[in-house]
Amino acid sequence: MAESPITAREKDFATWYQDVVLQGDMAEPAEIVKGCMVIKPNGYAVWEVIQRELDTRFKASGHQNLYFPLLIPESFLRKEAEHVEGFSPELAIVTIAGGKKLEENYVIRPTSETIIGHFFARWIQSYRDLPLLYNQWANVMRWELRTRLFLRTSEFLWQEGHTAHSSHEEAMEEVIRMLHVYADVTENVMAMPVVRGLKTQAERFAGALRTYSIEAMMQNGLALQAGTSHDLGQNFGKAFEVQFQTKEGKLDYVWQTSWGVSTRLVGGLIMTHSDDKGLVLPPKVAPVKAVIVPIYRKDEERAQVMEVAARLANDMGGILGGIQVDQREGQSPGAKFFHWERRGVPVVFELGPRDLASGNIVMKRRDTGSKEVIAQADAVAKLNATLETIQTDLFNKAKQRLKDNTVLANSIEEVESILNEDVTAEKGGGKFVMAHLADDPSNDRRIKEFKASVRNIPLVDEFDGPGKCILTGVPVEKRVVIAKAY
Amino acid sequence: MAESPITAREKDFATWYQDVVLQGDMAEPAEIVKGCMVIKPNGYAVWEVIQRELDTRFKASGHQNLYFPLLIPESFLRKEAEHVEGFSPELAIVTIAGGKKLEENYVIRPTSETIIGHFFARWIQSYRDLPLLYNQWANVMRWELRTRLFLRTSEFLWQEGHTAHSSHEEAMEEVIRMLHVYADVTENVMAMPVVRGLKTQAERFAGALRTYSIEAMMQNGLALQAGTSHDLGQNFGKAFEVQFQTKEGKLDYVWQTSWGVSTRLVGGLIMTHSDDKGLVLPPKVAPVKAVIVPIYRKDEERAQVMEVAARLANDMGGILGGIQVDQREGQSPGAKFFHWERRGVPVVFELGPRDLASGNIVMKRRDTGSKEVIAQADAVAKLNATLETIQTDLFNKAKQRLKDNTVLANSIEEVESILNEDVTAEKGGGKFVMAHLADDPSNDRRIKEFKASVRNIPLVDEFDGPGKCILTGVPVEKRVVIAKAY
Repeated sequence: MAESPITAREKDFATWYQDVVLQGDMAEPAEIVKGCMVIKPNGYAVWEVIQRELDTRFKASGHQNLYFPLLIPESFLRKEAEHVEGFSPELAIVTIAGGKKLEENYVIRPTSETIIGHFFARWIQSYRDLPLLYNQWANVMRWELRTRLFLRTSEFLWQEGHTAHSSHEEAMEEVIRMLHVYADVTENVMAMPVVRGLKTQAERFAGALRTYSIEAMMQNGLALQAGTSHDLGQNFGKAFEVQFQTKEGKLDYVWQTSWGVSTRLVGGLIMTHSDDKGLVLPPKVAPVKAVIVPIYRKDEERAQVMEVAARLANDMGGILGGIQVDQREGQSPGAKFFHWERRGVPVVFELGPRDLASGNIVMKRRDTGSKEVIAQADAVAKLNATLETIQTDLFNKAKQRLKDNTVLANSIEEVESILNEDVTAEKGGGKFVMAHLADDPSNDRRIKEFKASVRNIPLVDEFDGPGKCILTGVPVEKRVVIAKAY
Repeated sequence: MAESPITAREKDFATWYQDVVLQGDMAEPAEIVKGCMVIKPNGYAVWEVIQRELDTRFKASGHQNLYFPLLIPESFLRKEAEHVEGFSPELAIVTIAGGKKLEENYVIRPTSETIIGHFFARWIQSYRDLPLLYNQWANVMRWELRTRLFLRTSEFLWQEGHTAHSSHEEAMEEVIRMLHVYADVTENVMAMPVVRGLKTQAERFAGALRTYSIEAMMQNGLALQAGTSHDLGQNFGKAFEVQFQTKEGKLDYVWQTSWGVSTRLVGGLIMTHSDDKGLVLPPKVAPVKAVIVPIYRKDEERAQVMEVAARLANDMGGILGGIQVDQREGQSPGAKFFHWERRGVPVVFELGPRDLASGNIVMKRRDTGSKEVIAQADAVAKLNATLETIQTDLFNKAKQRLKDNTVLANSIEEVESILNEDVTAEKGGGKFVMAHLADDPSNDRRIKEFKASVRNIPLVDEFDGPGKCILTGVPVEKRVVIAKAY
């Protein structure tokens, strides 16, 4: 038997991940463009499912899509002091266009708050114009030195929501609403449990009053920030002079929010569920839900098997329902099984001449590898039930992993000792360490010494309530999540 | 009555178009980014419908979506001589990234043949790897001096199909297949008739052997190139060393195609159907198909009217079916009618207390302005029938216009005289002039003297077959389309 093209997860998590991405036809590095990648068909199809699930929820909550320019005048970024400081080192800059050196350079958007601020100032005059609930699907560019497919690339695809409100209270409702929308998609579609919480001041978005995040745990115990939702306060309103007349006839600056998730989610999905055989996709996010692999030797067998395979595939929902028959010639059934296994297809059926005689079909689950002989007549019901079971099982497994690897620490020494149990955390052993810690940048700096960070302060306290900060002794409301992270 | 915010089409076609775009909430210029625009919610929603219709057809014909980097090493463009010549003057160039001057500049993709050629060389070894049938949804940048919302902007959104084949014959089938897919969407979804044909050599895509186009006629008689499909031959295969082993064991270069349509289609849609009251959208491309405007004075009336309106809207398909109730407070019914009229909603219903008493509802068509009182019980059936009628009527009207303004010319003087009938053609009067003309760049140059161009050589000859070139006398197969164009 040939050696597996996928490095064992236990042996080297980072290489395992890269192998799964490549072998699953998800993406590949574009070395000729620094830090960028090509998102390949299977990866892009997963992103399309995630997009559709998000977009439906955005629209159901009253948001409209629109599109702003890719390029932003360089001066715009300087209008919000923290914002420019946060993004300047990562900018890609256009200095020549149409054969001429530009009078003012443009930056390729690293995010669009500034250019949107400019247009909000045009569009908003009165409280009657509010709220504005907008979203943009776009590519953005942040020049990165150390990149990893999907998780961190110089260019990535994302959505950025941008809303403007007449009160801080209404803006905060929006910030939390969208955080829950993100968690709904990651948990109920991607089967990836997350911790919803508030970022510390040290970790908030450049220019925001508050940043909320969802944090997922990868199979090696590392945290992945999977989405953020920002309370921008009136910072961009003031920077771009976005004023409105209130109901009472006064002038006030608008209250803004922004929120985003990106193709990074695809990386999180892969690191949450996949195994040493390759990609594992939860059925709800799998572009192809099941494949029938026909087995035959003679031509007449082929015709008979294909006929039944086509009928069954059609009954199960056909191409549009994500059901395929692998009709490729010149590939052995074994090669076909490996092909679909590496691509994470949730269920693969085998159908051969003996099955035709018995009226059966063999059903194999990608997540557990278990095989079952079922009656062809039950195939539709069995498939649907199995897809549901896989979805639930994958979520529960990830949820259990999150639970098992979340531990309490009551002193800074204990935090350090737990984080150091596995220095790289790349082989597994990474933990979410729950400790009482005050939201103060000096505390964040101390945690950084352990090559970890405060991930967030959970919205819901699942532990023991208030306590004293393990570094400063000041009273704090609840424990925060400390972890090594991507 | 307030003056219309929309300039009359007869008075000034270009200003009329700009007014329709702005008043219809379709787009607005982004002056701070040269030649770029913001695509506003109503415009983006139309683009989303067009995207979905195209994407479904691409997938049904076996194509997969993927995503290539935005930036292309400058040297890549030079690898195909005609290609670099065609695109160099329009490039936006990144020279600084991550705080440093780059060793090699990147261009923002004006189109992706070159970077895709690079990856095709990696992915293709054998005839077994072929065909590759890929498509990318993306933004591209071509620095333009004279821009017009949707029709010509420095940045635009588009799709670019890129395929690789083992024979020229198979590639040509793909080129023609996708041209027909484009025509199917423009004609049967956008109700915009087109002429399918081959571009002259002078007008082909930089680097292609042959370019095919669909050409639509705007209401002023000007032509709009609405989509192109290119036979790239082996040009990019040779430039990027994309070789494959044939079935016979020889090495050969792949045969490639590319094809694209862009947000320019939205501009064509607007210029095909809209009128002096604003946007007119064919039902199949309208994000909102019908709106019920409730009419009431007292609060109790409001409750009753809203209840019936909600029930009817739900019966007609609800929000997901594109049916809305205009619940906005503080706006008169008149203001609401204008609002939806300018946004091109195909059908608007009025529902007031008198209608509740009679069991009727008033239905108004956007395209004709005709009003009809119908029974509420018939509303669903009437709406569906009316939407179908509007779709058909708009197509037939545009088709008749194309026919009425397509004329034969049998000498170059006649061509000139017809093209000069209205020098700007901006007020209407533009024509598709059908003449026998040989496919020779010197002939194209002669036509350019009339500020017109050869649009294409139609696939299907609807006229009198072969004839002699009006400039050179050489025999040619059929008449070509000559017109002024955007």
